[in-house]
Amino acid sequence: MSDIAIAQQAKMKPIIGLAHELFGIAAEHLDPIGHYKAKLSLNYINSLQNKPDGKLILVTAISPTPAGEGKTTTTVGLGDALNRIGKKTIMCLREPSLGPCFGVKGGAAGGGYAQVVPMEDINLHFTGDFHAIGVAHNLLSALIDNHINHGNALDIDPRRIQWKRVVDMNDRALRHIVVGMGGAANGYLREDGFDIVVASEVMAILCLATSLADLKQRLGRIVIGYKSDKITPVYASGLNAHGAMAALLKDAIKPNFVQTLENNLAIIHGGPFANIAHGCNTVTATKTALKLADYVVTEAGFGADLGAEKFIDIKCRMTGLKPSAVVLVATIRALKFHGGVAKEVLNQENLSALEQGFSNLQRHYHNITQHYGLPCVICVNHFSFDTEAELNWLSNRCAELGATCVISKHWAHGGAGAEALAQAVANVVDNNPPTINYVYDDELSLWDKITTIATKLYGAGTVTASAKVKAQLKAWQTDYGRFPICMAKTQMSFSTDPSAKGAPSGHTVEISEVRLANGAGFIVAIAGDMMTMPGLPKIPAAERIDIDDDGRISGLF
Amino acid sequence: MSDIAIAQQAKMKPIIGLAHELFGIAAEHLDPIGHYKAKLSLNYINSLQNKPDGKLILVTAISPTPAGEGKTTTTVGLGDALNRIGKKTIMCLREPSLGPCFGVKGGAAGGGYAQVVPMEDINLHFTGDFHAIGVAHNLLSALIDNHINHGNALDIDPRRIQWKRVVDMNDRALRHIVVGMGGAANGYLREDGFDIVVASEVMAILCLATSLADLKQRLGRIVIGYKSDKITPVYASGLNAHGAMAALLKDAIKPNFVQTLENNLAIIHGGPFANIAHGCNTVTATKTALKLADYVVTEAGFGADLGAEKFIDIKCRMTGLKPSAVVLVATIRALKFHGGVAKEVLNQENLSALEQGFSNLQRHYHNITQHYGLPCVICVNHFSFDTEAELNWLSNRCAELGATCVISKHWAHGGAGAEALAQAVANVVDNNPPTINYVYDDELSLWDKITTIATKLYGAGTVTASAKVKAQLKAWQTDYGRFPICMAKTQMSFSTDPSAKGAPSGHTVEISEVRLANGAGFIVAIAGDMMTMPGLPKIPAAERIDIDDDGRISGLF
Repeated sequence: MSDIAIAQQAKMKPIIGLAHELFGIAAEHLDPIGHYKAKLSLNYINSLQNKPDGKLILVTAISPTPAGEGKTTTTVGLGDALNRIGKKTIMCLREPSLGPCFGVKGGAAGGGYAQVVPMEDINLHFTGDFHAIGVAHNLLSALIDNHINHGNALDIDPRRIQWKRVVDMNDRALRHIVVGMGGAANGYLREDGFDIVVASEVMAILCLATSLADLKQRLGRIVIGYKSDKITPVYASGLNAHGAMAALLKDAIKPNFVQTLENNLAIIHGGPFANIAHGCNTVTATKTALKLADYVVTEAGFGADLGAEKFIDIKCRMTGLKPSAVVLVATIRALKFHGGVAKEVLNQENLSALEQGFSNLQRHYHNITQHYGLPCVICVNHFSFDTEAELNWLSNRCAELGATCVISKHWAHGGAGAEALAQAVANVVDNNPPTINYVYDDELSLWDKITTIATKLYGAGTVTASAKVKAQLKAWQTDYGRFPICMAKTQMSFSTDPSAKGAPSGHTVEISEVRLANGAGFIVAIAGDMMTMPGLPKIPAAERIDIDDDGRISGLF
Repeated sequence: MSDIAIAQQAKMKPIIGLAHELFGIAAEHLDPIGHYKAKLSLNYINSLQNKPDGKLILVTAISPTPAGEGKTTTTVGLGDALNRIGKKTIMCLREPSLGPCFGVKGGAAGGGYAQVVPMEDINLHFTGDFHAIGVAHNLLSALIDNHINHGNALDIDPRRIQWKRVVDMNDRALRHIVVGMGGAANGYLREDGFDIVVASEVMAILCLATSLADLKQRLGRIVIGYKSDKITPVYASGLNAHGAMAALLKDAIKPNFVQTLENNLAIIHGGPFANIAHGCNTVTATKTALKLADYVVTEAGFGADLGAEKFIDIKCRMTGLKPSAVVLVATIRALKFHGGVAKEVLNQENLSALEQGFSNLQRHYHNITQHYGLPCVICVNHFSFDTEAELNWLSNRCAELGATCVISKHWAHGGAGAEALAQAVANVVDNNPPTINYVYDDELSLWDKITTIATKLYGAGTVTASAKVKAQLKAWQTDYGRFPICMAKTQMSFSTDPSAKGAPSGHTVEISEVRLANGAGFIVAIAGDMMTMPGLPKIPAAERIDIDDDGRISGLF
């Protein structure tokens, strides 16, 4: 049965009643969006300040492969299972982007019997947060060109505008464009481009903001470009843009409540890219969930080298959050892919490929336990093609590492299939105080932060950058030297070469570009080519998505 | 007191309860969006089919001026007043666009004590309909360039693509752009541009669609451009785009319930431009309101030459709707502006200017009563600067025309200020069967339809067009000859010259371009320059829009 068919059979409870039943939240604190989605008021969130925090569990994964690892599915399955074994748990997830939904992926709300619902709504617009982020971003873009058109009193250098436009769509034709054509009435000609909404700094800001006031301040701090002296930054606040941008985000800042197939509460809020941004749901969602529940399961984008690293070094560092355990998700199929097996034959038993690909899991496990200093449970997300021999080999190999490894069947059986995983995770969480190691210190220079991440976590031998990039980092050192680094690198490999599977070592990481995300409060270091606007495949998922006369949606996966 | 200050003092009732209290609608038929907005289910709408229809009242206005006429304000005030005098009434309005909200206007939900609320929500995203329309539009755009990039099996001529992209923002820099720059990975270079969302054919389609099935069919019929033979149209259905586009509009198609300051029900749904499109709220909203209420007050964009004409010739013609009366809104200030008075001195008494400007009102009144065949009540929307002498002169002059003219003070006093207007309108409605005259017959040629509108309604002496335009109309005659015309002309004048105030006659109307809106089902005839992407003014309203730490919004007017 397809994900959407399973989702459409869900016996959902009205979300307002569910929030009351599970966490005693009165209806007045929730803004319903239909009967199965709701936004929690900021006033109510503020009222929770003095409550103790629950335990935080981070779900991450090995380096992504086309085989699929099932990080969101595992987050949902684990959360359902924790609730089944009597641990009051909320899941915190990222909102899916429309672009990938119409591209290859088709949807992103878990899978099988470990899903969040209403699945169609979550995948299509959800509660409108991404549209609000997009239009807040584009308002600033329009104000920039409008300012220049009307005399450019701020002396913005049109060649040095860094603030592009955004759309929530995979649209390669918009990556590089020329705007302002067609004569004087349309302003000044310049090069520009569109990113996908999840790559917007406004998205990163919304996800890191701790209040409306903090949100507005961060928006005002955005550096949109430089004056004609080439070095004086121009801020969004200089254009008086931040007030209106924050007003546009008045609802987007409120966390969204939905439920799992098993009627447990999930908060889905924010969804920044895990390359160009930090790849985690909002701080507001995570902190709120920790006040409400005893256990909070959350996820971070891509593999543990990207999403989890940023979860630790950006999100936790900025907010004081401390996870109690990490779940590292792998699949037999994905490990075989890392061992060099072609996508088409991943369903065939192949122990030697499994052994080869295991290096990827091992490196991530090492990073999590040694460099992040966190207890780690390995979750093998079970596929029906997995053989006994493969599963046994993997369990034994993990045991040799001293790692807890659980084979989990939440995709097929929901929470019931993940009870062993839940028990293993609960054992760790209940017996370890929350702790954290940042990968680098605040005081390290920006360049040293970059090299630390690349050598410690990626296994790089050398980290290089052009003189221009190094000079830029040096120029930022005084004002922004304490900022953490947001590494933008391919998610497919520890190296910058997406085809280098397993656990490459001694490779060179070249930092091709650095960007200041002053509102978000980090420096983006781009290693290799980084795509901030995906394209659609030859046959996009959009072609099979449909709605019938009764409003039933099909073609979302 | 500012509009937003008045709106924020409103004693709103929870909308689900209000819908039940006023019209007996059970909660299960409404999807709440917060506590004060809700979407009505299509199933419930279908269940109303066999109920009798209420009476339809159209509010239109003289040719717009910078002085402001208050069409939405009057629609709300009249609706509140009708309810006060015991006539069960629903108001149907258009959704405001974000672009103008950040530009000059600052907001569009009525004014003074005749407003719809929650005002901030209605102006900022509302229920997300426009974002859904925008992304459905842009999905088709992305699919077009993606199709060409992946081999162009449909043989689309990239020079003849008519389907642009859209954003809900006033952004002049995007009017004319080049896309696909930056090398092979980004597709093929071509000229393109962005329109504002309200100019999208998807908006027009949503507003005219009578069901989900009809919506999807119309979306599939969109002509995005032509094949390399220059004449064979390429349809959205050829790209398999219509299913996913309709899926994106699954909620946008449901009418939105809100309330007035006086707790009467208003439906705000859809908002196409009144130049490039037909300028009325959705057919679904109007038809639903007619099933629920005894009286429905609705408005059409711009003056009676544009919005009202299209209301009659497009919306009513396509759907069989028949209004029972028209309210023609004028203000003393606006009439003086039409009489040549500068904006700065409009508050000074000036009877001779009033007399001169009256020609504009007279022409519109003539068109409504003679060409649309509808009974018309003239409403003078009162301003505190209006003098007794001016009001008396105007009343007398209207009486000479045989017209009912009511001075109405809903801006200052809400429904109570518009009771006389309501009584006058009710007298007309209750004593006249619904009727309608279309301005032209279906069977007339496309060119003759255009000349009929221009000569009959605009007072044009000559209608011209290039050989190319005439040839295009001729080419469309066989397949699309029965389509109505959607005239795109400046709203500021009966002529194509925005500075020609009053009631110019004998002027030349040049049709510079014609466009096929095959999904909407009309031919757009563009007379003069038509802006489908506005720009922001030197000091945009966005600069004063703000939100405080408690979430209170300011700066919306």
